Amino acid sequence: MHSNYIVIEGLEGAGKTTAREVVVDTLKALGVRDLIFTREPGGTQLAEKLRSLVLDIKSAGDEVIVDKAEVLMFYAARVQLVETVIKPALASGAWVIGDRHDLSTQAYQGGGRGVDRQMLATLRDAVLGDFRPDLTLYLDVTPEVGLKRARARGELDRIEQESFTFFNRTRARYLELAAQSDDILTIDATRPLEEVKTAIRAAVTTWVKEQNP
Amino acid sequence: MHSNYIVIEGLEGAGKTTAREVVVDTLKALGVRDLIFTREPGGTQLAEKLRSLVLDIKSAGDEVIVDKAEVLMFYAARVQLVETVIKPALASGAWVIGDRHDLSTQAYQGGGRGVDRQMLATLRDAVLGDFRPDLTLYLDVTPEVGLKRARARGELDRIEQESFTFFNRTRARYLELAAQSDDILTIDATRPLEEVKTAIRAAVTTWVKEQNP
Repeated sequence: MHSNYIVIEGLEGAGKTTAREVVVDTLKALGVRDLIFTREPGGTQLAEKLRSLVLDIKSAGDEVIVDKAEVLMFYAARVQLVETVIKPALASGAWVIGDRHDLSTQAYQGGGRGVDRQMLATLRDAVLGDFRPDLTLYLDVTPEVGLKRARARGELDRIEQESFTFFNRTRARYLELAAQSDDILTIDATRPLEEVKTAIRAAVTTWVKEQNP
Repeated sequence: MHSNYIVIEGLEGAGKTTAREVVVDTLKALGVRDLIFTREPGGTQLAEKLRSLVLDIKSAGDEVIVDKAEVLMFYAARVQLVETVIKPALASGAWVIGDRHDLSTQAYQGGGRGVDRQMLATLRDAVLGDFRPDLTLYLDVTPEVGLKRARARGELDRIEQESFTFFNRTRARYLELAAQSDDILTIDATRPLEEVKTAIRAAVTTWVKEQNP
Protein backbone atom coordinates (compact mmCIF):
# COMPACT_ATOMS: atom_id res chain seq x y z
CA MET A 1 0.00 0.00 0.00
CA HIS A 2 1.41 3.40 -0.92
CA SER A 3 1.04 6.45 1.29
CA ASN A 4 0.31 10.03 0.32
CA TYR A 5 3.06 12.35 1.48
CA ILE A 6 3.61 15.25 -0.94
CA VAL A 7 6.40 17.74 -0.26
CA ILE A 8 6.88 21.17 -1.81
CA GLU A 9 10.48 22.33 -2.09
CA GLY A 10 12.37 25.31 -3.46
CA LEU A 11 14.39 28.41 -2.70
CA GLU A 12 12.96 31.36 -0.79
CA GLY A 13 10.45 33.11 -3.02
CA ALA A 14 9.94 30.08 -5.26
CA GLY A 15 6.21 30.19 -4.55
CA LYS A 16 5.75 27.32 -2.10
CA THR A 17 2.69 28.81 -0.41
CA THR A 18 0.86 29.35 -3.67
CA ALA A 19 1.88 25.87 -4.80
CA ARG A 20 0.40 24.39 -1.65
CA GLU A 21 -2.95 26.03 -2.33
CA VAL A 22 -2.93 24.64 -5.86
CA VAL A 23 -2.02 21.16 -4.61
CA VAL A 24 -4.82 21.24 -2.05
CA ASP A 25 -7.41 22.49 -4.55
CA THR A 26 -6.34 19.83 -7.03
CA LEU A 27 -6.54 17.05 -4.46
CA LYS A 28 -9.97 18.22 -3.29
CA ALA A 29 -11.19 18.24 -6.90
CA LEU A 30 -9.98 14.63 -7.11
CA GLY A 31 -12.03 13.71 -4.04
CA VAL A 32 -9.39 13.86 -1.27
CA ARG A 33 -10.99 14.95 2.02
CA ASP A 34 -8.55 14.14 4.80
CA LEU A 35 -5.30 16.11 4.64
CA ILE A 36 -2.91 17.93 6.95
CA PHE A 37 -0.11 20.44 6.42
CA THR A 38 3.39 20.39 7.87
CA ARG A 39 6.30 22.76 7.61
CA GLU A 40 9.96 22.17 8.33
CA PRO A 41 11.74 22.87 10.46
CA GLY A 42 8.76 22.96 12.80
CA GLY A 43 5.31 21.47 13.07
CA THR A 44 5.46 20.33 16.71
CA GLN A 45 6.05 22.35 19.88
CA LEU A 46 9.58 21.01 20.25
CA ALA A 47 10.33 21.36 16.55
CA GLU A 48 9.11 24.97 16.50
CA LYS A 49 11.44 25.78 19.40
CA LEU A 50 14.30 24.21 17.48
CA ARG A 51 13.26 26.21 14.41
CA SER A 52 13.50 29.45 16.40
CA LEU A 53 16.94 28.50 17.68
CA VAL A 54 18.22 27.56 14.23
CA LEU A 55 16.71 30.32 12.13
CA ASP A 56 17.17 33.27 14.43
CA ILE A 57 20.78 33.60 15.44
CA LYS A 58 19.82 36.32 17.88
CA SER A 59 18.13 33.81 20.18
CA ALA A 60 21.57 32.21 20.64
CA GLY A 61 23.24 35.52 21.44
CA ASP A 62 26.23 36.35 19.30
CA GLU A 63 27.30 32.73 19.09
CA VAL A 64 27.91 31.29 15.62
CA ILE A 65 26.12 27.97 15.14
CA VAL A 66 28.54 25.43 13.68
CA ASP A 67 27.31 23.68 10.52
CA LYS A 68 27.03 20.24 12.08
CA ALA A 69 25.03 21.56 15.04
CA GLU A 70 22.63 23.25 12.63
CA VAL A 71 22.20 20.04 10.66
CA LEU A 72 21.60 18.00 13.84
CA MET A 73 18.98 20.46 15.05
CA PHE A 74 17.18 20.21 11.70
CA TYR A 75 17.23 16.41 12.00
CA ALA A 76 16.02 16.52 15.60
CA ALA A 77 13.07 18.67 14.53
CA ARG A 78 12.47 16.45 11.50
CA VAL A 79 12.41 13.13 13.30
CA GLN A 80 10.11 14.58 15.98
CA LEU A 81 7.71 15.72 13.25
CA VAL A 82 7.94 12.50 11.25
CA GLU A 83 7.39 10.19 14.22
CA THR A 84 4.72 12.16 16.08
CA VAL A 85 2.78 13.81 13.23
CA ILE A 86 3.52 12.60 9.69
CA LYS A 87 3.66 8.83 10.16
CA PRO A 88 0.54 8.67 12.37
CA ALA A 89 -1.38 10.82 9.84
CA LEU A 90 -0.32 8.66 6.90
CA ALA A 91 -1.14 5.50 8.86
CA SER A 92 -4.66 6.82 9.46
CA GLY A 93 -5.08 7.28 5.71
CA ALA A 94 -4.68 11.06 5.64
CA TRP A 95 -2.68 12.93 3.01
CA VAL A 96 0.21 15.03 4.25
CA ILE A 97 1.30 18.16 2.37
CA GLY A 98 4.72 19.30 3.55
CA ASP A 99 6.42 22.69 3.17
CA ARG A 100 10.02 21.39 2.94
CA HIS A 101 11.48 18.09 4.12
CA ASP A 102 14.83 16.34 3.91
CA LEU A 103 15.63 17.59 0.39
CA SER A 104 16.04 21.08 1.88
CA THR A 105 18.84 19.85 4.13
CA GLN A 106 20.56 18.06 1.26
CA ALA A 107 20.30 21.19 -0.91
CA TYR A 108 20.90 24.04 1.58
CA GLN A 109 23.46 22.37 3.82
CA GLY A 110 24.98 19.90 1.34
CA GLY A 111 24.88 22.33 -1.59
CA GLY A 112 24.77 25.88 -0.25
CA ARG A 113 26.76 25.42 2.92
CA GLY A 114 29.13 22.78 1.58
CA VAL A 115 28.56 20.36 4.47
CA ASP A 116 29.97 16.92 3.67
CA ARG A 117 27.33 15.13 1.58
CA GLN A 118 28.32 11.67 2.70
CA MET A 119 27.80 12.77 6.31
CA LEU A 120 24.37 14.16 5.43
CA ALA A 121 23.38 10.92 3.70
CA THR A 122 24.63 8.92 6.68
CA LEU A 123 22.62 11.08 9.07
CA ARG A 124 19.48 10.85 6.94
CA ASP A 125 19.68 7.07 6.76
CA ALA A 126 20.48 6.71 10.48
CA VAL A 127 17.63 9.02 11.52
CA LEU A 128 14.90 8.44 8.95
CA GLY A 129 15.66 4.94 7.67
CA ASP A 130 13.95 4.56 4.29
CA PHE A 131 11.14 7.01 5.04
CA ARG A 132 10.76 9.34 2.04
CA PRO A 133 8.04 11.57 0.55
CA ASP A 134 5.95 9.85 -2.10
CA LEU A 135 6.11 12.90 -4.34
CA THR A 136 8.21 16.05 -4.17
CA LEU A 137 7.44 19.13 -6.25
CA TYR A 138 10.62 21.16 -6.61
CA LEU A 139 9.80 24.73 -7.67
CA ASP A 140 12.84 25.88 -9.59
CA VAL A 141 13.69 29.59 -9.64
CA THR A 142 16.94 31.49 -9.97
CA PRO A 143 18.11 33.12 -6.73
CA GLU A 144 17.61 36.51 -8.40
CA VAL A 145 13.90 35.86 -8.97
CA GLY A 146 13.32 34.11 -5.66
CA LEU A 147 15.05 36.61 -3.41
CA LYS A 148 13.38 39.54 -5.13
CA ARG A 149 10.01 38.00 -4.27
CA ALA A 150 11.11 37.12 -0.71
CA ARG A 151 12.40 40.63 -0.08
CA ALA A 152 9.13 42.08 -1.27
CA ARG A 153 7.44 40.10 1.51
CA GLY A 154 9.44 41.77 4.30
CA GLU A 155 12.34 40.99 6.60
CA LEU A 156 14.67 38.13 5.73
CA ASP A 157 15.81 35.67 8.38
CA ARG A 158 19.37 34.47 8.88
CA ILE A 159 19.30 31.90 6.11
CA GLU A 160 17.65 34.26 3.64
CA GLN A 161 20.49 36.72 4.21
CA GLU A 162 23.04 34.31 2.71
CA SER A 163 24.84 35.31 -0.46
CA PHE A 164 23.80 34.69 -4.04
CA THR A 165 26.67 32.23 -4.30
CA PHE A 166 25.10 30.23 -1.48
CA PHE A 167 21.72 30.15 -3.20
CA ASN A 168 23.24 29.27 -6.56
CA ARG A 169 24.98 26.28 -4.96
CA THR A 170 21.73 25.33 -3.21
CA ARG A 171 19.79 25.49 -6.48
CA ALA A 172 22.43 23.44 -8.31
CA ARG A 173 22.14 20.71 -5.67
CA TYR A 174 18.33 20.75 -5.87
CA LEU A 175 18.52 20.29 -9.64
CA GLU A 176 21.12 17.55 -9.32
CA LEU A 177 19.09 15.57 -6.79
CA ALA A 178 15.85 16.09 -8.71
CA ALA A 179 17.53 14.66 -11.82
CA GLN A 180 18.51 11.56 -9.83
CA SER A 181 15.04 10.71 -8.49
CA ASP A 182 11.79 9.76 -10.23
CA ASP A 183 9.91 10.94 -7.12
CA ILE A 184 11.04 14.56 -7.48
CA LEU A 185 9.33 16.62 -10.19
CA THR A 186 10.97 19.89 -11.21
CA ILE A 187 8.55 22.72 -11.99
CA ASP A 188 9.90 25.80 -13.75
CA ALA A 189 8.59 28.46 -11.37
CA THR A 190 10.05 31.50 -13.09
CA ARG A 191 7.18 31.45 -15.59
CA PRO A 192 4.05 33.58 -15.19
CA LEU A 193 1.97 32.54 -12.18
CA GLU A 194 -0.92 31.03 -14.15
CA GLU A 195 1.44 28.80 -16.12
CA VAL A 196 3.10 27.58 -12.93
CA LYS A 197 -0.27 26.82 -11.37
CA THR A 198 -1.34 24.89 -14.47
CA ALA A 199 1.88 22.88 -14.39
CA ILE A 200 1.40 22.00 -10.70
CA ARG A 201 -2.23 21.02 -11.26
CA ALA A 202 -1.25 18.78 -14.17
CA ALA A 203 1.64 17.17 -12.27
CA VAL A 204 -0.47 16.37 -9.21
CA THR A 205 -3.40 15.08 -11.25
CA THR A 206 -1.18 12.80 -13.31
CA TRP A 207 0.59 11.49 -10.24
CA VAL A 208 -2.60 10.78 -8.29
CA LYS A 209 -4.10 8.94 -11.24
CA GLU A 210 -0.95 6.86 -11.66
CA GLN A 211 -1.04 5.94 -7.96
CA ASN A 212 -4.74 5.06 -8.01
CA PRO A 213 -5.43 3.60 -11.44
CA MET B 1 51.26 15.48 20.42
CA HIS B 2 48.67 14.38 22.93
CA SER B 3 46.02 16.72 24.31
CA ASN B 4 44.62 16.95 27.81
CA TYR B 5 40.90 16.36 27.82
CA ILE B 6 39.71 14.59 30.97
CA VAL B 7 36.05 13.63 31.32
CA ILE B 8 34.21 12.62 34.47
CA GLU B 9 31.29 10.25 33.97
CA GLY B 10 28.76 8.41 36.10
CA LEU B 11 25.16 8.09 37.19
CA GLU B 12 23.37 10.88 39.06
CA GLY B 13 24.79 11.05 42.58
CA ALA B 14 28.01 9.26 41.63
CA GLY B 15 30.01 12.22 42.95
CA LYS B 16 31.10 13.96 39.75
CA THR B 17 31.34 17.42 41.32
CA THR B 18 33.58 16.21 44.15
CA ALA B 19 35.65 14.23 41.66
CA ARG B 20 36.17 17.36 39.57
CA GLU B 21 37.55 19.23 42.58
CA VAL B 22 39.95 16.37 43.29
CA VAL B 23 41.07 16.25 39.66
CA VAL B 24 41.71 20.00 39.63
CA ASP B 25 43.62 19.95 42.93
CA THR B 26 45.71 17.02 41.71
CA LEU B 27 46.51 18.72 38.40
CA LYS B 28 47.43 21.95 40.15
CA ALA B 29 49.74 20.05 42.50
CA LEU B 30 51.38 18.61 39.35
CA GLY B 31 51.96 22.12 38.00
CA VAL B 32 49.00 22.53 35.63
CA ARG B 33 47.92 26.18 35.48
CA ASP B 34 45.70 26.59 32.44
CA LEU B 35 42.44 24.65 32.61
CA ILE B 36 38.75 25.10 31.83
CA PHE B 37 35.60 23.23 32.78
CA THR B 38 32.78 22.05 30.53
CA ARG B 39 29.53 20.30 31.21
CA GLU B 40 27.27 18.40 28.85
CA PRO B 41 24.79 18.94 27.56
CA GLY B 42 25.63 22.64 27.71
CA GLY B 43 28.65 24.87 27.91
CA THR B 44 27.74 27.35 25.17
CA GLN B 45 24.70 29.63 24.86
CA LEU B 46 23.17 27.45 22.16
CA ALA B 47 24.05 24.23 23.95
CA GLU B 48 22.53 25.48 27.23
CA LYS B 49 19.29 26.27 25.39
CA LEU B 50 19.30 22.76 23.96
CA ARG B 51 20.00 21.40 27.45
CA SER B 52 16.91 23.16 28.78
CA LEU B 53 14.78 21.77 25.96
CA VAL B 54 16.07 18.23 26.43
CA LEU B 55 16.16 17.99 30.21
CA ASP B 56 12.98 19.81 31.12
CA ILE B 57 10.04 18.27 29.33
CA LYS B 58 7.83 21.10 30.54
CA SER B 59 9.54 23.57 28.23
CA ALA B 60 8.24 21.51 25.32
CA GLY B 61 4.68 21.51 26.65
CA ASP B 62 3.15 18.09 27.09
CA GLU B 63 4.88 16.75 24.01
CA VAL B 64 6.89 13.55 24.39
CA ILE B 65 10.37 13.90 22.89
CA VAL B 66 11.09 10.89 20.68
CA ASP B 67 14.34 9.07 21.46
CA LYS B 68 16.07 9.96 18.22
CA ALA B 69 15.21 13.66 18.58
CA GLU B 70 16.69 13.61 22.09
CA VAL B 71 19.88 11.98 20.84
CA LEU B 72 20.21 14.46 17.97
CA MET B 73 19.78 17.41 20.34
CA PHE B 74 22.51 16.00 22.58
CA TYR B 75 24.78 15.68 19.55
CA ALA B 76 23.96 19.20 18.34
CA ALA B 77 24.90 20.59 21.77
CA ARG B 78 28.00 18.37 21.88
CA VAL B 79 29.40 19.33 18.49
CA GLN B 80 28.78 23.02 19.21
CA LEU B 81 30.74 22.68 22.47
CA VAL B 82 33.52 20.58 20.95
CA GLU B 83 34.08 22.86 17.96
CA THR B 84 33.71 26.25 19.64
CA VAL B 85 35.11 25.58 23.13
CA ILE B 86 36.93 22.28 23.69
CA LYS B 87 39.06 22.02 20.54
CA PRO B 88 40.20 25.68 20.66
CA ALA B 89 41.12 25.30 24.35
CA LEU B 90 43.09 22.11 23.74
CA ALA B 91 44.80 23.68 20.73
CA SER B 92 45.94 26.57 22.93
CA GLY B 93 47.50 24.09 25.34
CA ALA B 94 44.85 24.31 28.05
CA TRP B 95 43.53 21.30 29.93
CA VAL B 96 39.79 20.65 29.65
CA ILE B 97 37.90 18.96 32.47
CA GLY B 98 34.47 17.81 31.30
CA ASP B 99 31.40 16.88 33.32
CA ARG B 100 30.03 14.20 30.92
CA HIS B 101 30.72 13.71 27.22
CA ASP B 102 29.81 11.14 24.60
CA LEU B 103 30.00 8.16 26.95
CA SER B 104 26.85 9.48 28.67
CA THR B 105 24.92 9.20 25.42
CA GLN B 106 26.20 5.70 24.78
CA ALA B 107 25.28 4.66 28.36
CA TYR B 108 22.00 6.53 28.98
CA GLN B 109 20.49 6.34 25.51
CA GLY B 110 22.16 3.15 24.25
CA GLY B 111 21.92 1.34 27.59
CA GLY B 112 19.14 2.92 29.64
CA ARG B 113 16.81 3.94 26.85
CA GLY B 114 17.58 1.06 24.53
CA VAL B 115 18.27 3.26 21.49
CA ASP B 116 19.93 1.28 18.70
CA ARG B 117 23.65 1.17 19.52
CA GLN B 118 24.78 0.89 15.94
CA MET B 119 22.86 4.09 15.16
CA LEU B 120 24.52 5.84 18.11
CA ALA B 121 27.96 4.73 16.97
CA THR B 122 27.18 5.89 13.43
CA LEU B 123 26.05 9.28 14.71
CA ARG B 124 29.08 9.68 16.94
CA ASP B 125 31.47 8.89 14.11
CA ALA B 126 29.61 11.13 11.63
CA VAL B 127 29.49 14.06 14.05
CA LEU B 128 32.69 13.80 16.07
CA GLY B 129 35.01 11.87 13.76
CA ASP B 130 37.79 10.38 15.89
CA PHE B 131 37.67 13.10 18.56
CA ARG B 132 37.70 11.40 21.98
CA PRO B 133 38.63 12.34 25.58
CA ASP B 134 42.19 11.46 26.48
CA LEU B 135 41.08 10.09 29.83
CA THR B 136 37.65 9.30 31.23
CA LEU B 137 37.06 8.64 34.92
CA TYR B 138 33.89 6.60 35.28
CA LEU B 139 32.57 6.82 38.85
CA ASP B 140 30.72 3.59 39.39
CA VAL B 141 27.82 3.51 41.86
CA THR B 142 24.67 1.42 42.07
CA PRO B 143 21.49 3.33 41.20
CA GLU B 144 20.36 2.85 44.80
CA VAL B 145 23.38 4.72 46.16
CA GLY B 146 23.45 7.35 43.42
CA LEU B 147 19.78 8.27 43.46
CA LYS B 148 19.71 8.42 47.25
CA ARG B 149 22.46 11.06 47.07
CA ALA B 150 20.82 12.90 44.16
CA ARG B 151 17.48 13.04 45.94
CA ALA B 152 19.12 14.45 49.03
CA ARG B 153 20.30 17.35 46.85
CA GLY B 154 16.76 18.40 45.88
CA GLU B 155 14.44 18.16 42.93
CA LEU B 156 15.13 15.60 40.20
CA ASP B 157 14.83 16.49 36.53
CA ARG B 158 13.16 14.41 33.86
CA ILE B 159 16.04 12.02 33.36
CA GLU B 160 16.62 11.58 37.08
CA GLN B 161 12.99 10.49 37.42
CA GLU B 162 13.56 7.40 35.27
CA SER B 163 13.12 3.97 36.84
CA PHE B 164 15.73 1.87 38.60
CA THR B 165 15.59 -0.51 35.65
CA PHE B 166 16.65 2.36 33.40
CA PHE B 167 19.60 3.24 35.63
CA ASN B 168 20.64 -0.38 36.02
CA ARG B 169 20.76 -0.72 32.21
CA THR B 170 22.69 2.57 32.00
CA ARG B 171 25.23 1.37 34.58
CA ALA B 172 25.63 -1.98 32.84
CA ARG B 173 26.44 -0.18 29.57
CA TYR B 174 28.91 2.13 31.33
CA LEU B 175 30.72 -0.89 32.79
CA GLU B 176 30.69 -2.71 29.47
CA LEU B 177 32.17 0.25 27.56
CA ALA B 178 34.71 0.96 30.30
CA ALA B 179 35.90 -2.66 30.07
CA GLN B 180 36.43 -2.22 26.31
CA SER B 181 38.59 0.91 26.48
CA ASP B 182 42.00 1.57 28.00
CA ASP B 183 41.13 5.28 28.14
CA ILE B 184 38.22 4.78 30.57
CA LEU B 185 39.14 4.12 34.21
CA THR B 186 36.43 2.74 36.48
CA ILE B 187 36.50 4.11 40.04
CA ASP B 188 34.42 2.33 42.66
CA ALA B 189 32.53 5.34 44.04
CA THR B 190 30.37 3.50 46.56
CA ARG B 191 33.31 3.47 49.00
CA PRO B 192 33.74 6.08 51.77
CA LEU B 193 34.48 9.54 50.35
CA GLU B 194 38.12 9.70 51.43
CA GLU B 195 38.89 6.39 49.72
CA VAL B 196 37.24 7.56 46.50
CA LYS B 197 39.23 10.80 46.58
CA THR B 198 42.45 8.90 47.11
CA ALA B 199 41.67 6.60 44.18
CA ILE B 200 40.96 9.57 41.87
CA ARG B 201 44.13 11.35 42.95
CA ALA B 202 46.19 8.23 42.31
CA ALA B 203 44.59 7.57 38.93
CA VAL B 204 45.13 11.12 37.67
CA THR B 205 48.70 11.31 38.97
CA THR B 206 49.64 8.01 37.34
CA TRP B 207 48.04 9.01 34.04
CA VAL B 208 49.67 12.44 33.91
CA LYS B 209 53.10 10.93 34.62
CA GLU B 210 52.59 8.31 31.92
CA GLN B 211 51.67 11.03 29.42
CA ASN B 212 54.60 13.27 30.34
CA PRO B 213 57.46 10.93 31.25
